[in-house]
Order: sequence, then structure tokens, then C-alpha cells
Amino acid sequence: MLRAGARLPATRELAGLIGLNRTTISAAYSALEEAGLIVGHVGRGSFVAGPSEPPPHGFDWNAFLPEPEATGIIRGARNVEISFANSRPSREGFPVEEFRRFTKQVVESNEASEILQLGSPLGYAPLRRYLLAEGMSEGVAGSDDDVIVTNGCQQALDLIARSLVRPGTGVIVEDPVYHGLLNVFRRAGGKLLPVPVDRLGMIPGALEQALERERPKLVVVTPSFQNPTGVSLPIERRQQILTLVQNAGALLIENDIYSELRYTGEQLTRLKKLDTSGSTVLLRSYSKIAFPGLRVGWVIAPRPFIGRLAQEKQTSDLHSDQLSQAVLLRFAESGELAKHLERTRVAGGLRLQAAVEGCREFMPSGTRCTRPEGGMNLWVDMPAPLSADRLLARTIPYGVDFLPASYFSSNPAHSGGLRICFGGLAPETIRDGLKIIGDVARAELLRSKSAASYEPAAALV
Amino acid sequence: MLRAGARLPATRELAGLIGLNRTTISAAYSALEEAGLIVGHVGRGSFVAGPSEPPPHGFDWNAFLPEPEATGIIRGARNVEISFANSRPSREGFPVEEFRRFTKQVVESNEASEILQLGSPLGYAPLRRYLLAEGMSEGVAGSDDDVIVTNGCQQALDLIARSLVRPGTGVIVEDPVYHGLLNVFRRAGGKLLPVPVDRLGMIPGALEQALERERPKLVVVTPSFQNPTGVSLPIERRQQILTLVQNAGALLIENDIYSELRYTGEQLTRLKKLDTSGSTVLLRSYSKIAFPGLRVGWVIAPRPFIGRLAQEKQTSDLHSDQLSQAVLLRFAESGELAKHLERTRVAGGLRLQAAVEGCREFMPSGTRCTRPEGGMNLWVDMPAPLSADRLLARTIPYGVDFLPASYFSSNPAHSGGLRICFGGLAPETIRDGLKIIGDVARAELLRSKSAASYEPAAALV
Repeated sequence: MLRAGARLPATRELAGLIGLNRTTISAAYSALEEAGLIVGHVGRGSFVAGPSEPPPHGFDWNAFLPEPEATGIIRGARNVEISFANSRPSREGFPVEEFRRFTKQVVESNEASEILQLGSPLGYAPLRRYLLAEGMSEGVAGSDDDVIVTNGCQQALDLIARSLVRPGTGVIVEDPVYHGLLNVFRRAGGKLLPVPVDRLGMIPGALEQALERERPKLVVVTPSFQNPTGVSLPIERRQQILTLVQNAGALLIENDIYSELRYTGEQLTRLKKLDTSGSTVLLRSYSKIAFPGLRVGWVIAPRPFIGRLAQEKQTSDLHSDQLSQAVLLRFAESGELAKHLERTRVAGGLRLQAAVEGCREFMPSGTRCTRPEGGMNLWVDMPAPLSADRLLARTIPYGVDFLPASYFSSNPAHSGGLRICFGGLAPETIRDGLKIIGDVARAELLRSKSAASYEPAAALV
Repeated sequence: MLRAGARLPATRELAGLIGLNRTTISAAYSALEEAGLIVGHVGRGSFVAGPSEPPPHGFDWNAFLPEPEATGIIRGARNVEISFANSRPSREGFPVEEFRRFTKQVVESNEASEILQLGSPLGYAPLRRYLLAEGMSEGVAGSDDDVIVTNGCQQALDLIARSLVRPGTGVIVEDPVYHGLLNVFRRAGGKLLPVPVDRLGMIPGALEQALERERPKLVVVTPSFQNPTGVSLPIERRQQILTLVQNAGALLIENDIYSELRYTGEQLTRLKKLDTSGSTVLLRSYSKIAFPGLRVGWVIAPRPFIGRLAQEKQTSDLHSDQLSQAVLLRFAESGELAKHLERTRVAGGLRLQAAVEGCREFMPSGTRCTRPEGGMNLWVDMPAPLSADRLLARTIPYGVDFLPASYFSSNPAHSGGLRICFGGLAPETIRDGLKIIGDVARAELLRSKSAASYEPAAALV
């Protein structure tokens, strides 16, 4: 038996040893990794998961480490050929040449030694000035507002949680919602209050009830192309939600990282622009619209709150990397970001179309899918009794993965829900992948029906 | 009266208005900022601090924001000409040309699009492999160890606190110690247990008592050129501390960000290398030895703990910026980092010498100073009744600042203690600044003596 911590043979090696196809071995490893039984380490292979036995007389890490408070998802099943699991842009679409040009400009300029020195927790000053001016011209920053740069939107959420959430603090979140958002507020000890999302986003009536019942401190909303569902709040719901949150004296966090990725329909006004009371905090990021590997996001909010986030930023990591901030500033100022966005919208529109059509064409009857107008994700709800967890285990051997509903809710209403991230894949790949999911789903549904028909009738007593 | 949040006139403007010298106005603003009465905003001027009144019918941020759990230091007094307040390298010494060359190499290579895509919470794989191999060749990484890249050492401390510290968890820290370290563990709710530092670092006898009395979970030590004192643990103390911590079943965090900046004397073996039990976690960083503005540090520790840190990293900010990781990898691999370190050690030795001599020459009699053999900081302990807080208020009008003991201890043993960061200043500037501090200190001591002699004798009752 393999001890916890032991290294598994490489897939190629094991395939040779036991005379099986390497793809089969890889699928088995993926399934084991999905099940949490083994863990992959970059460049080093796979290891048996679980508490590793301490070396003789050594430190007992198993006894030492407390139970984690949040489950981070550190995955990356190997040998998946079509992955719908990551909400990220396509590598092929990266404006690499512009990135090269602007990076060279930055390092050749006199800025170089400024960038290399210790910076401010608030961010690189020229970028902050640009972002604030841009926010003002768009009407999302007012004279009482300020800007802090964060390592993407994930850190913005984390700093907000650090600032405001104590054990038991009520936080309203969408249901389903991005797992990284759930993890942040869970980790901080917040009492998560899920409010259901329908085809038009968070449901105002349900929000109203939750606000009255729980008096939460925070309401977190992704108004456009919500992750995972891809749905957007129409303007009427935006106004309703804003009024409800304001009347309840809560703070509204507007997670606005996808809204510039609109492929059809009209741009909707941001909540921060509609808000006249100063109780909305706007989160934005370059990660989804330019380069995810450069971690640059920002928050626009009233000055007292930005000051508070800066304190938390200083404790977290002093400040964000300045080279990337300077490069992204040039990218935005030059107008190249706007041009890149135009191209991205064209490419994204084709991907979205492939995803929507693929769902309609290949999914079993009874499946419901959202129809986003932009972003990177859509939501598929498989008919009962199909569970998305089970479906995932069945599609992985065919080289296709995605994240099932259990990642996006503490207590999913429908276990058949799953997220399809189409933003990083070519249209034909999207179709191929959805066809596999659809075929496997139909086979599973057939199997469950025939299994049900063989089930013995209940005894009469 | 100026309302909270109101903008103060620019120094130049006010100087003109009331007919005073601009330097005087600047000194007054600095003093007000030091006292927390006003707040400076980059490129926007100074504002009256404190809870800003909400706009009519607006959101009441004052009532909404909870008291901060940790006091971040977001300072930057303007008009200080000689600042001993920041432990950072000199901008003049940055290897800017190499930085340009390697950055261009990275962006021109095929790596570019890899770097721009979403990365791993563990760090950029080629850099991780390099750091682990380097750690193995130095004997600080064993076969059970792994590496995670962090945004500098500050984030490494923060991730450790997130992983292991719950309200009431005992954490032994040096006294005095770097304020950013105190803030991290305080913020996490840890019970901070200060163990005094003498001329040879943390005192083993005091550590033993604290371990027995408090059974803490963590012991955090900076063995070489400790911040703020600059002192280093000799090899015997390293062994003693390691044995004490191991016997107590606690985890040893070795904060090793300065050890490569040794200007005289012999390199001392790292605790991680001495440890055979697997209970030491090593923190390293490129921030102090190369470019602080690029936030790249790393942790070497047993695999189960690295996995745990990666979960916290994912929740904090997904992963570190990849461009800087790739640039620093080339810088290290090419051998240029080693050459830069050689030059830094020569320059640093001159700065250290200027600081040590300046302290001896200019400080009032009765002052005690540490005599580091490297790093960026030394510690000055002024004779009673001089308080370093008071001294700071007196040196700022002369354009000199530093951080007093109150930043480095919850309850400083000597209020006359202060940190001198000499790493970022030219030798002649160090001398000039220390002369001002010495002159002001002597004047203050004289004043307090004469004040004391005028104090009425106690009444006889």
C-alpha cells in the first residue's frame, strides 16, 4: 500500500508497466485527483494525498495543522483536453506584441528605478491618477471617491472581508456565486446569506426578505455577466437592489469585472453610477479584459473606506507589483486596451454563440441553459436525477471537465447545475466539448432510468 | 473650523497667504500628519483626518467602519530630507540596466504568453523549480520540502498567520520587532508573546520561560540582521533556540530576508539547515537584495504546509504577478544577482560604517547603539528621560525622521529606543542625519534637566 505523501509513477511509466494506454492511466489519475485521493505537484508528479506520516522523530504536521476554514480549489486535472473549468480569457487572443512594446517602453524610461523602489499600499501613483480620472469621466467616481490598486479582484474581495467582516457578520451573496468569493467571506467568519439568482440576476424580492430578516452588513453583487451564471441585472433591478440596500443601511459591493465584455445588447449603467448616497464600492480589474497573469485590479470607493483598505493591504503584502501596474497604465493610456477590447468582443461573441448553440443542440431534453450577452460563463441545469458531480466523473475520461454546482453554493438548489466557461476556448472546441458532455449526460440519464425501472417496488406492510 | 475631510491649502499657497517660509509650513503639516490630525493623498494634497461627515442623506462611513484591529503605518511625511524610517535598499544601487535587459528577454521570449495567462497559487513553475534546487544545494531544502512564491515576505507572514493563527493562538516574537510582523499576527487574533532581544538576538533563557509558561504554537525569529535592531544570533544561540522550540513542539518561522547582506564577519548557518526535524519554515525574498518594487518572496517548508499556504494564497489573491517572477528568475539564473549582491555588500559596508561611526560620534553620552555586521538597520537607545517619540517630533522640523520604539513593541522596555535605517542612504547623508538627531537629542536632554531643576520640591506633609 502506498503511504500518504508517496510519489506515484508517471503516467507514461505506469502505462508501460501494466500495459495500458496512457490516456486511460491519465483518466484514472484525474479521477483520483478529483476525488482528493492524490495531489499533483507542478513538474514533480502525483502524490498520495492526506496526512503524510512524519519522519521518525520528526515534526507531526498532521497534528499541527488546524482544519482549513475554507476549501481552496487547487486543481488542474492533467490530461483534460477541453476544460470548461476556468473563467479566463483565451491565450491566443492576448495582445502579446503590445505587451512587449509597452513593457520595453516602461523599462527603458526613467520610470524604471521608480518602479523598482518600495511603493505605496494604495498603488502606483500614475496608475491611480489615471484610474480615478477615468472613473470620473465614466461617472463611477465622484469627488469623495478614491482608488486603491489590488492584486486582481480576488484581493479586493479579501481586503474588504478583512476590513468589515468579523465572525458572524452577515454577507448577502448571490446563489450560485463564484467559489473564490464564497471562500473569502467564509474564511473571514462571515455568515453567508445566499439570495437566489434567476435569468435576470439576483431576485429583488428574495433580497428584500433577507435584508429584513438578517440585517446584513454587506451585499455583494456581480451585476453583469455574473460568475457562474452569465446573467445580468436589467436596469430596473439595479435600481430596486440599490434602493433596498440603501434603505437597509448596508454596503453594496459591485463586482464589475466582466461588464466590458459585452458581445450583444446595450451596456447597462453601473450601480456605482446610479448610487447617490456613497454606499457602493466598485471592484474592477484588468485580469479578465487584458492579462490574467498580471495581477492588477482596483477599487473605487469613498475615501474613508479606501484608507481602510490600504491599511489591510499594507498588512497583507505592502503593495502590488509596480512593473505590471506601469505596463498596464501604458496599455490603457495608449488606447491599445480599447482596441484590444474591440477585438476581444468580436472573438468573444463567436465563442458565446458556439456555447449557446452547443447547449441547445447537444444537451438532453429538459436541460435549461442561461443565455448571456457577454462575459465568459454560462450555466447549464441538467434534468433530474442527473447530478453534475457524477457527470463530471464521467466526462473526465473523455478529456472534458467543468465545475459542478457544488462549487458555487453551500447548498445547491439543483445538483444538476454546472458552469461552462467558454471564454478561453475556440468555437469548434466549445462545440466538441459540449457534444461530449451532452452525449455522456444522455447516457447517464438512460442508465438511471433503467436502474430505476429495475428497482424493487416497496414492500406492502 | 475645517471639517473632517476638508482639503488644506498647498504648502506653497499657505506660505504665500500668511507670509511664512514654506519650510515652516511643511514642518507644521508634517507634525500634524505625524499626530494623525491630517492625511496626505498622493498628488492631491492634505486633508483633515478623522471621520468625515457624511454628505446629506449619505452613507455614514464613520458608524459603519469597525475599529481597525491593527494599525497599519501609512505615512510618508513630506519635506523630510533625510529619512531613516524605511528599511529598504538605495535606489542608486539598483541594477537598472540588468533589469532592462532581463525584462526585454522575458517579453521577447516565447514565455510571454505563458506569463500573461492565469498562473498557479504556488508560483511560476520555472522560478519554483529554480528556488527549490537552489535551496537544496544550500542545504535549506530537503526532499520533503516544497516552495511557494509570495508577494514578498510580508505576504508569507500573512499566509502563515491565516493558516495557523486563530484568536488566542500563542505567537512568540522578538521584542523589539518589525511592526509589519506584529500587525500580521495581531490582526489574526494571535496572543503575541514578546521575548527580549539583546546584542546577540533573542535571549534563549527568556524564550525557554515563555515556551514553558505559554505553550505557544509559533516562534518567529529573524536570525540575521534583525529588524529593527540589526543584531544576529550566533551559532550557539541558533542551536539552543532550535532545540527549545523543537522540545516545545512549536513551529519555528525563520524570517531570513537580510542574511545575504553581510558586510563583515562570517556567514552563519540558517536554522532551517540546522533543523533535522522538519519543523522550521524558511522565509526569503528578493525585495531586500534586488528590487523592493517587484514583490517576489518565497517560503521553503515541508510539503503539507506549502499545500496549506497555497490554499490561503488562492483565497488572498489567486497567485503572484508572473512577469516579475520571470524577470527575477533570469536575474538569478544569469549570475547577475550574485554580482549585484557583491556590489551591494561593498556599498552597504560603507553605509554601515557611516552609521556606526555617526552614532558613536554624535549621540549624547549614555546612548547605546547596536553594532550590526550587515543588513539595513541599527538600534539606538537614548539615555533617560529622553523619549524617542518626543525626539522625532523635534527632528522633523530639521528634515530628519525615523521610527521610534513604540512602533516595534506593544510595550517598549525603553521609550528612548529608535531604529536607524541606513540601507537606502549615502554615507555622508547618514552622517548628516545622525548629527542632527544627536544635536537635537542633546538639546532635549539639557532642557529636561533644567526643567527638572526648576521643579518645586515636594511639599512636606
